[in-house]
Amino acid sequence: MTAPWGDIAHLGHVELLTPDLDGTVWFFTDILGLVETGREGSSVHLRTFDDYELTSLIVTGHSTSGIRRTAFRAGGPEALERRAEAIRAAGHEGTWVKGDAGTGRTFLTTDPDGHELALYFETERYQAPDDLRPGLKNQPQAKPNRGIGVRRLDHVNYLAADVLECAEYMQNLLGAKPTEQIRMDSGRIAARWMTFTNKSYDVVYTEDWTGSNGRLHHIAFATDTREEILRAADLCLDKGVHIETGPHKHAIQQTFFLYVWEPGGNRIELCNPLTRLVLAPDWELITWTEEERKKGQAWGLKTIETFHTHGTPPVGE
Amino acid sequence: MTAPWGDIAHLGHVELLTPDLDGTVWFFTDILGLVETGREGSSVHLRTFDDYELTSLIVTGHSTSGIRRTAFRAGGPEALERRAEAIRAAGHEGTWVKGDAGTGRTFLTTDPDGHELALYFETERYQAPDDLRPGLKNQPQAKPNRGIGVRRLDHVNYLAADVLECAEYMQNLLGAKPTEQIRMDSGRIAARWMTFTNKSYDVVYTEDWTGSNGRLHHIAFATDTREEILRAADLCLDKGVHIETGPHKHAIQQTFFLYVWEPGGNRIELCNPLTRLVLAPDWELITWTEEERKKGQAWGLKTIETFHTHGTPPVGE
Amino acid sequence: MTAPWGDIAHLGHVELLTPDLDGTVWFFTDILGLVETGREGSSVHLRTFDDYELTSLIVTGHSTSGIRRTAFRAGGPEALERRAEAIRAAGHEGTWVKGDAGTGRTFLTTDPDGHELALYFETERYQAPDDLRPGLKNQPQAKPNRGIGVRRLDHVNYLAADVLECAEYMQNLLGAKPTEQIRMDSGRIAARWMTFTNKSYDVVYTEDWTGSNGRLHHIAFATDTREEILRAADLCLDKGVHIETGPHKHAIQQTFFLYVWEPGGNRIELCNPLTRLVLAPDWELITWTEEERKKGQAWGLKTIETFHTHGTPPVGE
Amino acid sequence: MTAPWGDIAHLGHVELLTPDLDGTVWFFTDILGLVETGREGSSVHLRTFDDYELTSLIVTGHSTSGIRRTAFRAGGPEALERRAEAIRAAGHEGTWVKGDAGTGRTFLTTDPDGHELALYFETERYQAPDDLRPGLKNQPQAKPNRGIGVRRLDHVNYLAADVLECAEYMQNLLGAKPTEQIRMDSGRIAARWMTFTNKSYDVVYTEDWTGSNGRLHHIAFATDTREEILRAADLCLDKGVHIETGPHKHAIQQTFFLYVWEPGGNRIELCNPLTRLVLAPDWELITWTEEERKKGQAWGLKTIETFHTHGTPPVGE
Repeated sequence: MTAPWGDIAHLGHVELLTPDLDGTVWFFTDILGLVETGREGSSVHLRTFDDYELTSLIVTGHSTSGIRRTAFRAGGPEALERRAEAIRAAGHEGTWVKGDAGTGRTFLTTDPDGHELALYFETERYQAPDDLRPGLKNQPQAKPNRGIGVRRLDHVNYLAADVLECAEYMQNLLGAKPTEQIRMDSGRIAARWMTFTNKSYDVVYTEDWTGSNGRLHHIAFATDTREEILRAADLCLDKGVHIETGPHKHAIQQTFFLYVWEPGGNRIELCNPLTRLVLAPDWELITWTEEERKKGQAWGLKTIETFHTHGTPPVGE
Repeated sequence: MTAPWGDIAHLGHVELLTPDLDGTVWFFTDILGLVETGREGSSVHLRTFDDYELTSLIVTGHSTSGIRRTAFRAGGPEALERRAEAIRAAGHEGTWVKGDAGTGRTFLTTDPDGHELALYFETERYQAPDDLRPGLKNQPQAKPNRGIGVRRLDHVNYLAADVLECAEYMQNLLGAKPTEQIRMDSGRIAARWMTFTNKSYDVVYTEDWTGSNGRLHHIAFATDTREEILRAADLCLDKGVHIETGPHKHAIQQTFFLYVWEPGGNRIELCNPLTRLVLAPDWELITWTEEERKKGQAWGLKTIETFHTHGTPPVGE
Repeated sequence: MTAPWGDIAHLGHVELLTPDLDGTVWFFTDILGLVETGREGSSVHLRTFDDYELTSLIVTGHSTSGIRRTAFRAGGPEALERRAEAIRAAGHEGTWVKGDAGTGRTFLTTDPDGHELALYFETERYQAPDDLRPGLKNQPQAKPNRGIGVRRLDHVNYLAADVLECAEYMQNLLGAKPTEQIRMDSGRIAARWMTFTNKSYDVVYTEDWTGSNGRLHHIAFATDTREEILRAADLCLDKGVHIETGPHKHAIQQTFFLYVWEPGGNRIELCNPLTRLVLAPDWELITWTEEERKKGQAWGLKTIETFHTHGTPPVGE
Repeated sequence: MTAPWGDIAHLGHVELLTPDLDGTVWFFTDILGLVETGREGSSVHLRTFDDYELTSLIVTGHSTSGIRRTAFRAGGPEALERRAEAIRAAGHEGTWVKGDAGTGRTFLTTDPDGHELALYFETERYQAPDDLRPGLKNQPQAKPNRGIGVRRLDHVNYLAADVLECAEYMQNLLGAKPTEQIRMDSGRIAARWMTFTNKSYDVVYTEDWTGSNGRLHHIAFATDTREEILRAADLCLDKGVHIETGPHKHAIQQTFFLYVWEPGGNRIELCNPLTRLVLAPDWELITWTEEERKKGQAWGLKTIETFHTHGTPPVGE
């Protein structure tokens, strides 16, 4: 049984861990253009300019890098209860906790690979202070004049020992719709892209070559234009931020991308899908073969080697 | 009682009337870059490159301009039945007919202003011929090398004598979600934007100053970038297509726009929303006052006078 | 007798006057992304990221707005002497003074309308401090992560009581090449665009409707892309900077433009010519008639009324 | 003794050889958007939309690929004579011939590596036929609605056995100004970029690893925007044109680039310099070391291997 469409409305926010809190906050504010909204212990709350909720990203100082939590907003209070019950009914554990970062009552659980997931519905809407007041009332905050000014947290790409198991969890228990995947000649699913919205993907599972659990491949922020990704590449070049690969266009999902490593070591993607959306209610899952994947990216760029060796936290790199 | 979210999945295609069939087809193919897929009587079937269905637009030779039909794809077979029943239960007429342009069994009805609406679920997926075969398997058709190559039919803006009545019909019977509106000081709703998706709008009703029924303000096609809208403006300038207003950015919905009149007289918008989406399941309807509307567009352009005098078919212009 | 091509190499820098020094400096740094390099009395020295010289703009606190000085770099030491001699030989006054803002020995004179012109050859090359060190050695300074980051001071558009007299001065004594002009039905030249480079214009004279002397229509800064001009419009909207007109494309010279008034009142253009250049050594001056000018800008925008009523310093506005 | 600045005004046109005339013409018209202006024997004359002269490119059917001729327009009739005399005075042969493709009396010679060079001044200005009439009188031709619509032939990159010898020929006899170069640790110049204009380069010599003579590395066409290069990549992907490398940004000269092989085998670059220009009359030649070149392109892309193995005509590939 799958979940009703809309029970999970969208990706809410993510908590990222970093061994270099200052460096990571500098990257997200000075390069990506997020705005700091508060601090709590060793955590810094940040937001993109078009997030209607309070928080897009929490960055927490830690002994290592990685992702701690991914929060999803439910489509309504009943949808939230329904998802919690379904998860428990399927034999997974979960607890109701106080939400973080402006969100209300939260159901906390983990995917089969151990990534912490938080489901909530109640949320605080952002009210911009005077110096961030937007010129138009249909935008929560002025576009920042510092850094890129990314529009939103776009997606999370998890590493997982068993991609299919995690993907089915997302599909069956959270209602994600699979849009594209990579199937190895052996039949094993090496990666699957899934969505809760008309975006072509919100969450991705990629096979963890180390067999470790709970790790992160990358999180991504959407820019308004491809030009802003090119500008980001220049800023990273000038400021010494490690550019891993790109800018280029993915064959899978066609996203225009730039991958960089923020000072804490986490891989961050800047992504732009143009106006591509998945509108078909019965979208047919697209499968890329091992052979097709070898062709590399859309315009011929070979997939960079470190894509298959670097995850966070690092494991024996 | 409102319709469940997803019962109408998305805008399917539109049938446009034109007194200058050749001119209109030339405009849509040579300037917008649509591809002709077939002819039937005095109708020409056209498609945008990223439409997974067969047809995005039907252009039909006629004594005058205007819109004949708007087709919406339902979220599934049950959703289709449910919408048909709800419409009839609310006292509106409707008949089941054979669908046009690759679509299956269709429920044909009208909104309260007399615009013909067609609901369907079954649809034929487009298979590109060799010369339009795309380089990537997640795209239905190669991007055309002629004209702009718009990605999709984006939205329809209807003129209506009673905006609120039509909007409530769309919301209550089809499940549209209102996102923005204009309210006059008198309390009358002068325009309302509604969506069936995460796009911030799919259909709009604008007050018909003549009190006529069934007329069209414009239909819009989405481009991948704002740059393509600027390129379209150059093509229109060189080819003598009447540019009505733009390029500029709407305050309402923030869409980057260009309005032109195709040779048959219908107003066509080229629109680009950047990566802006409405993800909140409980989006709060934004209301613009008469005063605010007077300010014009986002960057200060005054709303052009013909926006309030030209609709199709023309009435006493 | 005209001056040899190359005797004036390019526009160097401009000194702008402002009754609101803090506001003006905020605009140029926070919105346009210029960097402050020093202060001297009530003058602030600013530079764009791709200027190989020390200074692109001097902003000076004053009782009113306007332009004080325009500095041009000569093609070499002999060219500088040659121009000074030619100017004196033609009966104009001029004195050798110490240059400002990193420039050496300077010949100071005025055009027939009284705009102060400074000619120099020696100049100090900019050496970026550590925090502005660029990633590539063929760029003088890192692209700023604040504001737009305009590439260069692009051109100056002077108001003048007698356009033709000033234009002939520029052509005969400084070697400017006229590229486009507006000729009224009466035969009077209402505006002329001239260049010292392969850019299609570096200086412009526009008729001063008040008959006053020495005033400024606008100065312009070139952005790398049209997208950056659209981004600038958003920043100005959010920050309350007055947008006068645009973004749109000029018919004359085809420049993509945005006009704003900086807090001190001076009109500033953000301009982007794409990759258009004037390469023909025997370019034929293009003349626009009064009738053609009435058509407005390239894509149909009417020329804004304040273009013919606002100059700096203001005169009876 | 060097030539006066401006004696060579700009690159005029190029004659390219191809063993697949139809394929090559298809590429230049359907993908790049050049327009055919005439045929003469096995030669097809083509032009970009912003060329004020008649012809930008001649494509000639031949047994192999490569470049036959590069034509440069002199700054005036005296400049033309001066260059011809200087070339002969330096001991190089040259003959006066009838010019091709709309150009007048032409001095034909070769660079030290055997590339044929044609110098001319008289030229026919393009007059657009009705269907290519532009909307603005300062543009020679309407921007095509087919393919990319590149603005101009931008530069030629020659392979040469002895780069320095060829570069000095260009500098001393034609007046080219060197802007950037690669110097190997051995002191050998491996490549040098030179300009006749304010563009940062018009001609380049790159070391021919085979020691052959008269070969071509690539010719380049300038697009108006980087977005058009991204669009070109999509068109090439869909149409099966071999993309060699890019899109990315060169470290040297900072050009945004895409390299493809046209059906005849010649390497073609689509390039976009943004608004970067070389305005300094005393520009200091920038030298990149062997070590610096190893870093690859601006944002980290490694220089593709075939850059050092593929030239035209091919030699033992």
